[in-house]
Amino acid sequence: MKKIAFVGVGLIGGSFALEIKLLYPQAQLIGIDKNKENIQEALDLKIIDKKGTIDDVACADMVLISIPVDNIPEVLSDILARVKEQTLVIDMGSTKAEICQSVENHPKRNQFLAAHPIAGTEYSGAKSAFRGLFAGKTMIVCEVEKTSFALQEKALDLFQKIGMRIRYMNPVMHDKHIAYVSHLSHVISYMLGKTVMEKEASEKDIFDMAGSGFASTVRLAKSSASMWVPIFKQNRNYLLECLKEYIENLHQFEQLLAAENYSRIFDQIDQINQIKDILNGKNIQIK
Amino acid sequence: MKKIAFVGVGLIGGSFALEIKLLYPQAQLIGIDKNKENIQEALDLKIIDKKGTIDDVACADMVLISIPVDNIPEVLSDILARVKEQTLVIDMGSTKAEICQSVENHPKRNQFLAAHPIAGTEYSGAKSAFRGLFAGKTMIVCEVEKTSFALQEKALDLFQKIGMRIRYMNPVMHDKHIAYVSHLSHVISYMLGKTVMEKEASEKDIFDMAGSGFASTVRLAKSSASMWVPIFKQNRNYLLECLKEYIENLHQFEQLLAAENYSRIFDQIDQINQIKDILNGKNIQIK
Repeated sequence: MKKIAFVGVGLIGGSFALEIKLLYPQAQLIGIDKNKENIQEALDLKIIDKKGTIDDVACADMVLISIPVDNIPEVLSDILARVKEQTLVIDMGSTKAEICQSVENHPKRNQFLAAHPIAGTEYSGAKSAFRGLFAGKTMIVCEVEKTSFALQEKALDLFQKIGMRIRYMNPVMHDKHIAYVSHLSHVISYMLGKTVMEKEASEKDIFDMAGSGFASTVRLAKSSASMWVPIFKQNRNYLLECLKEYIENLHQFEQLLAAENYSRIFDQIDQINQIKDILNGKNIQIK
Repeated sequence: MKKIAFVGVGLIGGSFALEIKLLYPQAQLIGIDKNKENIQEALDLKIIDKKGTIDDVACADMVLISIPVDNIPEVLSDILARVKEQTLVIDMGSTKAEICQSVENHPKRNQFLAAHPIAGTEYSGAKSAFRGLFAGKTMIVCEVEKTSFALQEKALDLFQKIGMRIRYMNPVMHDKHIAYVSHLSHVISYMLGKTVMEKEASEKDIFDMAGSGFASTVRLAKSSASMWVPIFKQNRNYLLECLKEYIENLHQFEQLLAAENYSRIFDQIDQINQIKDILNGKNIQIK
């Protein structure tokens, strides 16, 4: 690969570029990003070799799209229309159904691979990118059968070289399940931040009492609105579904506590504690 | 100090013992714990020097109580009745109002200091204890004026030597505020664990999609029922209060999402993102 274009050079695109630079030191990495400050930072940090425009995708051998998910359908169609035959286009959005559907009838559908790396931090922008973000993490690939054999192989080879585990899913199941283990966690965390900030406004010094438990639960509340509102928008239905179940569980807890039914609360928590083994078994760790 | 008794040698008591061993290498550390396996582990790990019974507090120069909060009132009264004059008794419970009230009229009230170290992990037992747990953390001290001058000084000197910041509060405000930054986070996390575990039961492989974001938000769901149900019980009223506000915030988010009011969601999250600066400013980190 001689030229690789990164459309969006934030935490994900930038971290991917750092891995690719290591794997293909001879390739030229071209960064394309609406945010001028961010793209300059990516260049200064040597994450990319050159600032480019969307025209540059025409000569790229591979294009990686890592931008807010609501922009992906339009940008992806445009990029597919511009790229050479045999150029692989990958999107890394956190939602997959709407994106896959948007290119369903695109004449170059088989040059596209829909992916979602289960990796990230609460920080964004090129300055937050780092090598190693993807090692040992899961890459979910959707509708792999719609990508041409040669490009499937190229993409999977790349993901494996970066050290990722690959899992195949259909995009609708992806969106439904990821709502539970990722999108819901973000809403929960944002609303915890909101609740405590509202309280701190009237009663000072609450944050002085916060420890590592609060820091952990509220960590995702630092995640940028520009990235997350589009995700909530694209995954609205499934997010509403799991949000409803979550609120129902909180209500039940509230009622048990109000009724002082501590033995029932104990049994519930005792069962929930099994999540320790589940998370250890799956080797899921806090970054 | 020649003899120091630890009533409860779990994560908190055990970690405190490790610090004290470093500060007072000549002192004998006596561990008292209902759980035979745990106390044997504490001895094997050299966290304590000797297994003892409640009778041993009679000859101790200092007694540290780190047991589930619902047992503290009874045990504390009993210990105060047994100790020598000039022996300092400290409790480290996560709730303070009921505990302080329980000894309000105790003849030896001035030998007691009510404290709450804002430190811990999701693990429990002597095997989880480690040196350094308290360094740089906050120790909240309640009703300090009710402890005799000499014993106030002894306790504060110890906390400072361990590297803790000290904050004084009244026990009711402590319980009210800690509900927001600690107890609520635990409920949130438990219920997230419950919601996803329930979903996983019907649709497999959801946990396979979990990443570091989920791990962080659900971390506290690993915390033991034996420690946390008593806390919820003792801080029931304030916990119900902040749980109500939290559920209300979730409802509002749900309604905004259902109504597709993304600009309002964006503004909210954009404001919540300021928590980044608040947490950095207070140097609150995930352990």
